[in-house]
Amino acid sequence: MKFEKYNKYLSYSYSLGAFPTLELIKYHKNDVLHIFIHSSFNNIEVIEKIKNEIPNQLISYDDKMISKLSNKENIYIIGIFNKYKTSLDSKENHILLDSISNMGNLGTIIRSSLGFNVSNLALVNKNIDYFDPKVIRGSMGAIFAFNIEHFNSLNDYKNKFNEHKIYSFMLQAKNTLQSTAFKDYPLTLAFGNEASGLPNEYLNENSVIIKHNDLIDSLNITNAVTIGLYKLFNDINKL
Amino acid sequence: MKFEKYNKYLSYSYSLGAFPTLELIKYHKNDVLHIFIHSSFNNIEVIEKIKNEIPNQLISYDDKMISKLSNKENIYIIGIFNKYKTSLDSKENHILLDSISNMGNLGTIIRSSLGFNVSNLALVNKNIDYFDPKVIRGSMGAIFAFNIEHFNSLNDYKNKFNEHKIYSFMLQAKNTLQSTAFKDYPLTLAFGNEASGLPNEYLNENSVIIKHNDLIDSLNITNAVTIGLYKLFNDINKL
Repeated sequence: MKFEKYNKYLSYSYSLGAFPTLELIKYHKNDVLHIFIHSSFNNIEVIEKIKNEIPNQLISYDDKMISKLSNKENIYIIGIFNKYKTSLDSKENHILLDSISNMGNLGTIIRSSLGFNVSNLALVNKNIDYFDPKVIRGSMGAIFAFNIEHFNSLNDYKNKFNEHKIYSFMLQAKNTLQSTAFKDYPLTLAFGNEASGLPNEYLNENSVIIKHNDLIDSLNITNAVTIGLYKLFNDINKL
Repeated sequence: MKFEKYNKYLSYSYSLGAFPTLELIKYHKNDVLHIFIHSSFNNIEVIEKIKNEIPNQLISYDDKMISKLSNKENIYIIGIFNKYKTSLDSKENHILLDSISNMGNLGTIIRSSLGFNVSNLALVNKNIDYFDPKVIRGSMGAIFAFNIEHFNSLNDYKNKFNEHKIYSFMLQAKNTLQSTAFKDYPLTLAFGNEASGLPNEYLNENSVIIKHNDLIDSLNITNAVTIGLYKLFNDINKL
């Protein structure tokens, strides 16, 4: 089996490394096109897990293919998968990212989000290629547990999920996160672009700001999102 | 004035961009060796701020030097500074990072930390070059507000700061962060390497784990640190 080095126009993408590939198999084994294993890889437990779930004809030992797809990093397992479509669950809490641009940030946010029980992600206003291997890597494979949908605008999102109360994280907000108690589920935590934040159309009576001192302008986006998710997780579980 | 592209053996480093350079001038103007401004830079407010603080003979318009030092990014201001030494304040709360290895992570942590009122950083077990321009960039210049010290071991740190109660963030901890109330200042929040976490010698009755579900192994280091700092800030300020 031959596969090309990733570009966004391909119908497939891939997970680099054993842990993300096991996550791929756990959540989307029917979308797996091929698994490549390096000839020097000798973790029998991992190989067994793969062979238990994936038909033999979809598994190859191919060091050249691994080297071609992995940019010479120390990668021993690659999982190729068909890009699949998912839809957000209207009964679950969502995270919404408007115009996020950095692949690594997106991956890191997905990983934190899964850890705090939010696995539905709306991407608004920008067709960021969430199946880029950099996103998958940053998420450590957590992306395979997610439902993800693109929306052209906030209104498109609201029209589809009109029961979700949107808490938008904005520097212009009057309420602090610290004084907010999340309730009325399902809800949506919304965050903006790395440099410019959320546009004004998101500002409403539920908007929140994470209170910190004025020695910095704002928190890094992944840190802000993770604090929001941590608070939500604590409020739901009364921690 | 001629300066070399950065390597760790140089006696100087530099801030890339207007915002980090203004932070450099705000906290360490006496360590500034030179300011380079791009000929197309026309933010008069920023130029005035620089000229008010830095002697004229230390300011040049030099597009070639900016291009040389900035890797062709869109950079219009560079501040060259002498690497200076600082010592931790024994009366203040500290953050301790053992064997952190990623420059960008270190910068992001420094930025969050400043925002939550912790500006003393102990780096243990690894001589990470904290004046690398990648760290400065990641911190958005927050590093210039910091005291930073290297320690060869946890014991060296403890010997110098024996009054600091150490809260170590570890997956093996019995207490959750959520059930912990920070008190008995000054204290130290300690975090380990991106991949391996803190070594066992840090485990004590104050160790904490950030409770999340078991769908992920752990949080990304910068997110974990930021949650710890957020909790500390809230506990101190009763938010």
